[in-house]
Amino acid sequence: MFPYICEFVGMFMLILLGNGVVANVTLNKSNFKGGGLCMITCAWGLAVMIPVYIFGPFSGGHFNPAVTIGLAVGGLFPWSMVPGYLIAQFSGAFVGAALVSILFRDQFNATEGDPNAKLGIFCTQPAVRNIPLNSLSEFVGTFVLLFSIMGISNAAGLHPAQGMGLAVGMGNLYIFGIIVAVGQSLGGLTGYAINPARDWGPRLAYTVMPIHGKGCAHWADYALVPMIAPILGGSFGVLLYELIFSMAR
Amino acid sequence: MFPYICEFVGMFMLILLGNGVVANVTLNKSNFKGGGLCMITCAWGLAVMIPVYIFGPFSGGHFNPAVTIGLAVGGLFPWSMVPGYLIAQFSGAFVGAALVSILFRDQFNATEGDPNAKLGIFCTQPAVRNIPLNSLSEFVGTFVLLFSIMGISNAAGLHPAQGMGLAVGMGNLYIFGIIVAVGQSLGGLTGYAINPARDWGPRLAYTVMPIHGKGCAHWADYALVPMIAPILGGSFGVLLYELIFSMAR
Amino acid sequence: MFPYICEFVGMFMLILLGNGVVANVTLNKSNFKGGGLCMITCAWGLAVMIPVYIFGPFSGGHFNPAVTIGLAVGGLFPWSMVPGYLIAQFSGAFVGAALVSILFRDQFNATEGDPNAKLGIFCTQPAVRNIPLNSLSEFVGTFVLLFSIMGISNAAGLHPAQGMGLAVGMGNLYIFGIIVAVGQSLGGLTGYAINPARDWGPRLAYTVMPIHGKGCAHWADYALVPMIAPILGGSFGVLLYELIFSMAR
Amino acid sequence: MFPYICEFVGMFMLILLGNGVVANVTLNKSNFKGGGLCMITCAWGLAVMIPVYIFGPFSGGHFNPAVTIGLAVGGLFPWSMVPGYLIAQFSGAFVGAALVSILFRDQFNATEGDPNAKLGIFCTQPAVRNIPLNSLSEFVGTFVLLFSIMGISNAAGLHPAQGMGLAVGMGNLYIFGIIVAVGQSLGGLTGYAINPARDWGPRLAYTVMPIHGKGCAHWADYALVPMIAPILGGSFGVLLYELIFSMAR
Repeated sequence: MFPYICEFVGMFMLILLGNGVVANVTLNKSNFKGGGLCMITCAWGLAVMIPVYIFGPFSGGHFNPAVTIGLAVGGLFPWSMVPGYLIAQFSGAFVGAALVSILFRDQFNATEGDPNAKLGIFCTQPAVRNIPLNSLSEFVGTFVLLFSIMGISNAAGLHPAQGMGLAVGMGNLYIFGIIVAVGQSLGGLTGYAINPARDWGPRLAYTVMPIHGKGCAHWADYALVPMIAPILGGSFGVLLYELIFSMAR
Repeated sequence: MFPYICEFVGMFMLILLGNGVVANVTLNKSNFKGGGLCMITCAWGLAVMIPVYIFGPFSGGHFNPAVTIGLAVGGLFPWSMVPGYLIAQFSGAFVGAALVSILFRDQFNATEGDPNAKLGIFCTQPAVRNIPLNSLSEFVGTFVLLFSIMGISNAAGLHPAQGMGLAVGMGNLYIFGIIVAVGQSLGGLTGYAINPARDWGPRLAYTVMPIHGKGCAHWADYALVPMIAPILGGSFGVLLYELIFSMAR
Repeated sequence: MFPYICEFVGMFMLILLGNGVVANVTLNKSNFKGGGLCMITCAWGLAVMIPVYIFGPFSGGHFNPAVTIGLAVGGLFPWSMVPGYLIAQFSGAFVGAALVSILFRDQFNATEGDPNAKLGIFCTQPAVRNIPLNSLSEFVGTFVLLFSIMGISNAAGLHPAQGMGLAVGMGNLYIFGIIVAVGQSLGGLTGYAINPARDWGPRLAYTVMPIHGKGCAHWADYALVPMIAPILGGSFGVLLYELIFSMAR
Repeated sequence: MFPYICEFVGMFMLILLGNGVVANVTLNKSNFKGGGLCMITCAWGLAVMIPVYIFGPFSGGHFNPAVTIGLAVGGLFPWSMVPGYLIAQFSGAFVGAALVSILFRDQFNATEGDPNAKLGIFCTQPAVRNIPLNSLSEFVGTFVLLFSIMGISNAAGLHPAQGMGLAVGMGNLYIFGIIVAVGQSLGGLTGYAINPARDWGPRLAYTVMPIHGKGCAHWADYALVPMIAPILGGSFGVLLYELIFSMAR
């Protein structure tokens, strides 16, 4: 039971901080409005790093179905634990996003205009709708994430099956760096979900919570992209890493 | 006597640097005016990290009544030392803020307009006055802070009763990350006091020091929020952490 | 074969992230347009740090002909492996840049105007054309890079012949710092190639890939500067370091 | 001879990168013009961190007469080596600044207007001329610097007489943090020289090098402030640290 609770609480913190920063810098009557893209990408990196640091040694600190499934595909995580991890991740993300909708209620009320801007606080949208290229963007971003996670674990001499193998200090800093890098280099295309739970949990919160002036949650016409492409890209990253490093032996 | 002096001097440095950056980027005739919110959140993180690094091994590097009381509530810090720590923290914060009011005297004199802007250099104010939501924001922010501090100590294999258990290098970097994360993700709501001494010490300095064009210090109608909510949120963070990790054993 | 594959894949990731950030913050219809120069310099630092972390223990993590040749000039890398490393680096850079041209295709299509702006996403250009000073700028930047790499390896007690000697955690962070520092301090002059493969691989991709509204790739009138000056500056950095520290013994 | 060469080369790199960033973000026809204050404060931190990392284990990595004299006042550095260190620091700073004036020659030529802006690339100036408060600002900034350096050395279990005791990895990161913190929190007042050689070496380069449209170097009416106040503040920081921690024993 304990690793599932870790995944739930960590994912709650991840989305509280991650959705929080977008609300913080975009909504009216927030004193940090206009904080900018450096702050958004940096805070998302911290939002991942902090729970990974806290929970990494206990659950692996996945907080991402693409990580959990990717490691399972690579034979590094037991399939029997995958369903529980996914449930914990999606529900933790939902609760974190719901808390953001409550904390920033006055700010949501003070912000009129494009409902898509409010959706963007919670989940991802493409800059230009183009399902093949949008999917490729999420695939490549998650490939970089999982390939790098494998590399960090390996460089540290840890077997990735020990969760993400990130129990030691420096590895967590690199997780921060990887999240920031993917965001700063590819984030303008699709908002770098690179994580189905990070997208669907808050998308559900946007759908069911009372939020002033909200619009379509785009379940039907986009949500499958940040669900499927990250799982494929992450699994490809794990497998390619294993292929390349099988040559080293 | 020594740990109390550490808390006093460290809190003095924390507020000197923390109040300093807000003055530095907001007052007229400062060459760093317009430095922006990334600089403010980053410098507050450094303002906490540096004294924690210097004094952590000797006093625990609390510099925050919510930390001191939260650890005491969790049975990790002796109640007998709490009063002395709080006195050191509040008085150190006052002296640091008083020095900022002296260093930036010409800049305060050169800045006319909203007295609340000058108050905001010293202590916190809500973006939208809503005592329940303001209190919730400070509660959640301090919850994240203390929960994370507990996690860092635990991950490093240190007992948190050794101060904050942050004597080792990496832990201090995470303190920086946590302060930056809470600020960037929630700071626009109430200015993320998450620390009663960080708010009340400078609020008192604002009240008693000669500052050009100052206004109401809002003791009566707001100051209780950053006093009470962080203590409750921090204690909740310690207790929830202990509850969750009691399952791990 | 394995180290060459490491150099190829790492260089691919480096340019994917590095060219990516410039596209991400400069092209129309990217949601991160306007991310600014802090983001560009930070992301380039991460673009180098992440593959160095992943592949450093296996290939040395050069990803730069100026590093490979400079170390060979200093007697710290076998000349017999230089050709294979250079081929891997240039081809990896080409593939990374080609993928950026595909990922951002809609954004390239949405951006009209100066073809040089699109060239600047891929490779470097001088702010003011002045071949001697442009060459000096690239020489000095690469000198700083290699001298610092030598220093990091030495300070960590590692022989630089173990690749860049960066297999341990902290060294990778300094690589990040060095790349950011050279960019922030000298990047406005020539775009801090400081790496022939980082410049020529993407320049070739710009030349051969279909990119909307592209112009001259400036092979004839500039490309020799980021090819020759970094190799000379890097070799000078290695030799000067060896000269100075020969006194220490 | 070797430690003096380390101080000379390190100070050269420090000023090359430090003066470089200000030129890079303020001069016309630099592609990084407008990089902003976050970039300036960050790059100055890197400009100090990188040579400290390279040379710290060999010369102590002072690069600052206030550090050298402060440690000597505290009995932690031999007075007999002070003159050689100061000569190396001032001359290294001069050469670094002279190189910046050459590298950015076209950019200096392209920038008309206030000569003080060009002076500000090289050395420090007060935002508001007020010699007592300007001196206090430099005194406080250098006090924070030296007190923190003492703390880092102590926390790491190193005797500060081993240079700055910064030979180990994490300490160098904190040097970065301290330089950034002082700049971001107090830099708008006097430009945070906190280092006589960082100010006088480049001031001399500004005086003697051919720079388009240069003006008064303000030797007579200001330069004594960044010479004297940092030495006094730094020495005070060392002595206060020794006094406080004498209680710990």
